[in-house]
Amino acid sequence: MAEPGPLIIIGGHEDKEGDRLILKEVARRLDSGTLVIATVASHKPEGYFDAYKEAFAPLGITNLVELYVNERWEALEDGAASVLEDAAGVFFTGGDQLRIASQIGDTPIEHAVLALHQRGGLIAGTSAGASVMSETMLVKGSSAESHRIGDLHMAPGLGLLPDVIIDQHFAERGRIGRLLGAVAQNPRVLGFGIDEDTALVVEGQQCRVIGAGAVTVVDGAGLTHSNISEARPERTLSMHDVRLHSLSAGDRFDLATRRPAPVT
Amino acid sequence: MAEPGPLIIIGGHEDKEGDRLILKEVARRLDSGTLVIATVASHKPEGYFDAYKEAFAPLGITNLVELYVNERWEALEDGAASVLEDAAGVFFTGGDQLRIASQIGDTPIEHAVLALHQRGGLIAGTSAGASVMSETMLVKGSSAESHRIGDLHMAPGLGLLPDVIIDQHFAERGRIGRLLGAVAQNPRVLGFGIDEDTALVVEGQQCRVIGAGAVTVVDGAGLTHSNISEARPERTLSMHDVRLHSLSAGDRFDLATRRPAPVT
Repeated sequence: MAEPGPLIIIGGHEDKEGDRLILKEVARRLDSGTLVIATVASHKPEGYFDAYKEAFAPLGITNLVELYVNERWEALEDGAASVLEDAAGVFFTGGDQLRIASQIGDTPIEHAVLALHQRGGLIAGTSAGASVMSETMLVKGSSAESHRIGDLHMAPGLGLLPDVIIDQHFAERGRIGRLLGAVAQNPRVLGFGIDEDTALVVEGQQCRVIGAGAVTVVDGAGLTHSNISEARPERTLSMHDVRLHSLSAGDRFDLATRRPAPVT
Repeated sequence: MAEPGPLIIIGGHEDKEGDRLILKEVARRLDSGTLVIATVASHKPEGYFDAYKEAFAPLGITNLVELYVNERWEALEDGAASVLEDAAGVFFTGGDQLRIASQIGDTPIEHAVLALHQRGGLIAGTSAGASVMSETMLVKGSSAESHRIGDLHMAPGLGLLPDVIIDQHFAERGRIGRLLGAVAQNPRVLGFGIDEDTALVVEGQQCRVIGAGAVTVVDGAGLTHSNISEARPERTLSMHDVRLHSLSAGDRFDLATRRPAPVT
């Protein structure tokens, strides 16, 4: 049986005109097979597909197909998922992660995405497409302000990564507070905050960071106190003894042991 | 001999019209003595003094005097520091922390501020006036972006708090990256990131949080790896095994043991 394929989880705004380090990593994994660009996250998908077509062309990836779902019934029609059946990978573009989950959750398209992953295919996603990969996903919360404990909205994601919460545009939008809050809710869950033009490449339990920025890991296993379950939602988060790692290009992280390892 | 007085270290934008929780704490410590409003941090101090006069009046604090230094020679003149001699406290307003240090460092004004602290007087400061309290102060660095290891400027501060680095407007400006970088430079130093309308009240080794937001504590004592001394300043920070606390109103922190304690 094949191993499940890699995940490339991108913090948004990956470079599309310069070195394209992250898109190159996507390209490298396709072995000239078809890449499905899933623009489902967006209410107005116009332009997304063409932008990726242009960005991937110089990397030798010309076999691109768009997958869009405007209304959920389209995802339930016969043949809606056929484009995924012989694809080498799928790339979820940005927008609203709740739109991805609500449009394709429990449809043949979601099943085909999971099957693609199981047979070793690539699943990549940027911004909303990154957040949606986890089992429980962060949908909404404060950015660039003190984190109030009630200010957090979660929903079930695609479940490609269990026991993980992913946040994106992380440094750029000042999202450490809401990621801490998400981890406080259940410290079983490991928090990953991914900066723009940065990606976490996951293969089995092994992660590696590529790109320009940092991946911040929030590990709540050793928490000694939090006020997250207090009654007053406007209370500011209090949380003691978080373990935090800032990982940059080349750093690795083991999901099983929760341990980082530097560039070797 | 008197104990050194309290420090009230404010993350900027403290409420001046509503509950004024933080200004109330300042007022409470003055015992109707004179409060010196030091507007030295600003190139254009007009308006600062009047704003604080108005904000403090309903709290019963009417004995306010402004201290400004336009050029450094003014701080060296006879009597420049006399206003501090029988003051109950001093409040450093916002602007540029390097302006405070460079204008009053090693002048009779700085000496009088330290003497006021030593004899039990209150030293308060907001924004730049908060940063300047530490021995080594954070002057400039990235906000709301991935932290590059070379992107950090430090300078000697007033030295009221040794072994501490203070950052302000913390959540609002997304400054976790630069505070981590500052702590990575020498993990002896404890990092405090103070949100707007939030203050850390320090008495001896005991700290308490008041106000609306959070105080984020970055403790690097257990660091197992950092790339901060790498040659390439454009490298993104890598830092493993940081201990982090998010403290909110009522939480305490002991500087000697580096341990937080929740509201009791």
